[in-house]
Parts: sequence; structure tokens; C-alpha cells
Amino acid sequence: MKKFSIAIHGGAGTILKSNMTSEKEAAYRSALKTALGLGQDVLKNEGTALDAVEQAVRYMEDCPLFNAGRGSVYNALGGHEMDAAFMDGNGMNAGAVAAIRNIKNPISLARKIMEQSEHVFLVGDGAMEFARMHGLDFVEDDYFHNEHRYQQWQRIKDSARFQLDHSEEQKDKKFGTVGAVALDSYGNIAAATSTGGMTNKKFGRVGDSPIIGVGTYANNETCAISCTGSGEYFMRNVVAYDVSCLMEYKGLSLEAAAHEVIHDKLKKIGGGGGLIAVDALGNISMPFNTKGMYRAFALSDGQWGIGIYNDPINIMQ
Amino acid sequence: MKKFSIAIHGGAGTILKSNMTSEKEAAYRSALKTALGLGQDVLKNEGTALDAVEQAVRYMEDCPLFNAGRGSVYNALGGHEMDAAFMDGNGMNAGAVAAIRNIKNPISLARKIMEQSEHVFLVGDGAMEFARMHGLDFVEDDYFHNEHRYQQWQRIKDSARFQLDHSEEQKDKKFGTVGAVALDSYGNIAAATSTGGMTNKKFGRVGDSPIIGVGTYANNETCAISCTGSGEYFMRNVVAYDVSCLMEYKGLSLEAAAHEVIHDKLKKIGGGGGLIAVDALGNISMPFNTKGMYRAFALSDGQWGIGIYNDPINIMQ
Repeated sequence: MKKFSIAIHGGAGTILKSNMTSEKEAAYRSALKTALGLGQDVLKNEGTALDAVEQAVRYMEDCPLFNAGRGSVYNALGGHEMDAAFMDGNGMNAGAVAAIRNIKNPISLARKIMEQSEHVFLVGDGAMEFARMHGLDFVEDDYFHNEHRYQQWQRIKDSARFQLDHSEEQKDKKFGTVGAVALDSYGNIAAATSTGGMTNKKFGRVGDSPIIGVGTYANNETCAISCTGSGEYFMRNVVAYDVSCLMEYKGLSLEAAAHEVIHDKLKKIGGGGGLIAVDALGNISMPFNTKGMYRAFALSDGQWGIGIYNDPINIMQ
Repeated sequence: MKKFSIAIHGGAGTILKSNMTSEKEAAYRSALKTALGLGQDVLKNEGTALDAVEQAVRYMEDCPLFNAGRGSVYNALGGHEMDAAFMDGNGMNAGAVAAIRNIKNPISLARKIMEQSEHVFLVGDGAMEFARMHGLDFVEDDYFHNEHRYQQWQRIKDSARFQLDHSEEQKDKKFGTVGAVALDSYGNIAAATSTGGMTNKKFGRVGDSPIIGVGTYANNETCAISCTGSGEYFMRNVVAYDVSCLMEYKGLSLEAAAHEVIHDKLKKIGGGGGLIAVDALGNISMPFNTKGMYRAFALSDGQWGIGIYNDPINIMQ
């Protein structure tokens, strides 16, 4: 069997054991394991990296635990606006959407744009019109209703009336995003990222997730990357492509490049977050400079692991 | 007097002498000269690169000759949607907007977001709400009416009903964007880009112009860049940041890096267009792989020039 690898994340930030109940932790671990397993099954059955990352991200979009798809946070108008991006390392085609509503799986829309249009990036109503024409699943507003997220929004919605979003999530430095990267048995890599943005967000703010080269990037020659963190800092540092350039132009390994970008360059400007990365040899890197990052990985040799806090992952076989 | 430099562009593409009347050519040259002069005056008077690029781009936004601001093309709904980005190489802060309407000078909104918000990228109605709160100039729809652009749209609007925008401009491979980059006497560099998009564009398509690291980038350590071209290819190649990385990680000069990105890497995937670039030493590079690019430059030693077609610029003193 040829090598394959997959890594997923469900967001980074101030994720502390002290704030977690064992039930909640078990729920996150179980969801990560299921998402990982879906991607892993695709790869085991000689499916493509494209299908593996899409399946893993779709599951996390459907799971209310993560801030993406169904679990998206409330924006300032009490609605749910989502962003997503998809990139194929083989040929480096890409698709992305921002500020979309009522789409069940934004990641599948991003992939559809990549595959069925000449465009890379569609936003708002226009992106939704494209989704309708291509038969994507639409859901009603109440699909996204979640009592916990709603209360979270109620507590802060008035305080931020005249300022840009100082959301509870932001104060907590918890960045809700999901993503997946994979290498398939054909030697191709792919990346996918999806997010529900920031609680109480205003002004049509778009973060790094849907920006090709920033929150999402894939190139068979270097790496596939999905980021999670303080989007504005990630954008200014062009994070995902920076990892790729450090590998291509400076000859760094995936691990060294990803470490430099997250622990040196991003930290230097005050940016918090992390990323997951895979290269064409199947190496995986999952650095983050926050207290935790929901993450999991699996390799074709049977090794796998799930991590939440800032301690080494217990590797299983 | 300390060194300064400025370069501007008004779009790249199939710009042929055979399609140009001498009146039209003179109008373009005159507009480029005025825009250049506005930026140059700021720099001569020890103003900042930020002010220089903003003034030059504002002039081109106000001039109906260029596809940005007032001269923006018609989208599929017969309206005008604009994108813009601004980046400060000193501290690498940035601001960008996409899918905005009725804003007289999108570049000034991008700068306002950079300076007055924690965010980098705002889109659609939310971006316009931010503009209203910060006192940006709004204009009515008829401000953007231009008989030539309107006829251009009328000729193609029905043909593209069920497909993504194969606009006349795209067939022509003419990419309407304006931009400016500058080095000021304090050693700081800045970049600004503004566009009205593609004729008859649909689906909320956003191109490379407002994407930090793709159509616009500035970093005092490397270069300031503004691009114009086939946005989708520029996005997949993360063009602006790629020039910066080739300089920072591979040690290339500005000229060599810009050449490699436009003439080798972009051409290889079939992408057409160009860019203008300045580095912290005041060097300027203006490569393009199309038949022409509206462009001009000026240096503190008095040299300046204006070019349209694919032949060397006649340098004046």
C-alpha cells in the first residue's frame, strides 16, 4: 500500500483543561475521531485527498460542537455567515466562498467553485446563486440555531454596538474554524477550511479562512495547509503560502517551516493560532502558539492520535 | 534630499497601438501623468508613501478612463461593484474591501479600514456601513454611468446568462485595475490597488486586487506590489507575496523576483497580466506578459516616464 496521511483541526485558542468537563472533552474527542475516520476511510480505499478532506470537513460542519456549518456563531444581526476554501495541490486549482448563508456545507460549495467555474472566490448573494444553480443543499435559518451560541451572542451583542467585534470568542482567544489536509496514495495533497466567523461580527468581516495562500493552500511540490487563528494577523503574514515558500525557496522541512511561521513570525506580531500541514512525503505538522488546538491525525502505517491541549499527542497504533 | 520613488498602473492586457486613436492615447498619457504628478508632489514635499499612493489611486478612480471608481464596468445586474486594498510596508498593516457599491473612492475606504479598525477585510453591505460611520463619500448610481461601458455591457449581457463571466474584457484579455506603489523619504513603502472588476461579472466574483498577498502587498523589508491581470491565476500563485518571498528567502533582486513571477511562473499556468513594484532602495520594476500595461514612474533624481505598449519606456529627466 502506498503512503497516505491526514490531519484535521477544529479550531485553536484558550482551550484549558480547567474549563472543560469530561463529558465535553469526550464529545470533542469523539467528533474529531469520527471526522478523522471518515477521511481515513477514503484514503484507505484509495480515494483522493480531495474527497478525504471534504468528507472530514463536512462532518465537522454538520457537528454543532465546531464553529463552522451548523455550529456557526451568531453575527451582529443574529444570523450566520460562513466562509470556506478548498485547494487541490495537483494543478493548484482553488475555490473559496465568503459571507454565505443557509448553505449546509460551505466546503462543498468551495469545491464546486473550484471544479465547475473559472473563478476562485465568490462572495455573498452571488455565491449563493451559484450554489442554487449547482444543486448545493440549502437549509433554513433554524438549522443553525444553537442555544449555547445564542446565549453567547445575547450576552455581548449590545456591548459591541459601535465598535468592531470584540467578541467573547475573541477575548477568550478561541478561534472557531475547522480544516483538513491530506496526502493520498496517488501522491496528491489537498487542503480544506471552513468557518462560521466571530460571534457578533459586523461589517461583513472576512477572515483568513477563505483566502487562498492565507488560511488555505495546497501545492504538491511543497505542502497543504489549513489555518485557525486571529485572521487579521494571518492575513498580514500570508501564513499558509509563507510555509510553502520557506520550504520551496529556503529549503526548510515542513516541520521547520511551519514552526517558524507559527512560533516565530506570527507570535512576533502578536498573532495567535495554529495550522495543520502535510507534505507530499506524508509528513504532518500541527504547530500552534495558543493554549490548545482541537486536532487529530492518521497515517497509512496505522499510527493516529487526537490532541486538544498544549501537550504532546499520545500516539496510538 | 532623501530618495523617493513612485510607480502607478492603470491595467494590463491586449493594449495595441492599432486599436488606439492618437486622441485616446493622449488622454491616457495625460491621466497617467496627472496621477503620477499627484503622488510625486506628496513625496517631494516629504509626505508619506501612504498619502502618495492614495492620491495617485484616487485620481485614477475619479477618471472615467480606468476601470476603478467612477470608470468601473457594469456587472451582470447593470450595477457597479468595486474592490480595493491598501497596505503599509511599515508595520505591515492592511485594509481591503470587496463587493462595495456607491463609494466614490474605494481606496480611501480600504485605508480607513487599515487605520481605524482591527480588521483587514470587509465585504458588501457591512463594508458600506463601516464607510457610512466613518464619513466616506457616497455617490449615486448615475455617477458611475458611462455610455461606452454601458454599451460594452449591453453587447454581452445576454450571452453570458448561464455561465460565469466571459466578458468582452476577458476575451480581449484587458484587465481593468489601477494601482500605485511608493517609497517615501522616511524609507517606508506602501501599495494600493483598486478595481471595478469584470464587465458583466456575476456571482459576487472577487478577483485578486483586494487580496492582501495576492494583488496588493507591502513590507519594508522586501517590496511593495500592486498587480493587474487574470485574477484567478494571480490568486492561485499568490503573486504579490511570491515576489516578496523570492527576495527574502532566495535573495533575488526586486527585478529578478518580479520577472520570475510574471514571465515564468504566471505564464506557465496561462495567467496574463503584470505588476508594479518598488523596494526600500527605491528600485522600481514593472513587468507584464501581455501586449501592454498603462504605467508610469518617477524617481527623486528627476527621472520619469510613461508607457502603454510592450516597448521600453522613454525615460525623461
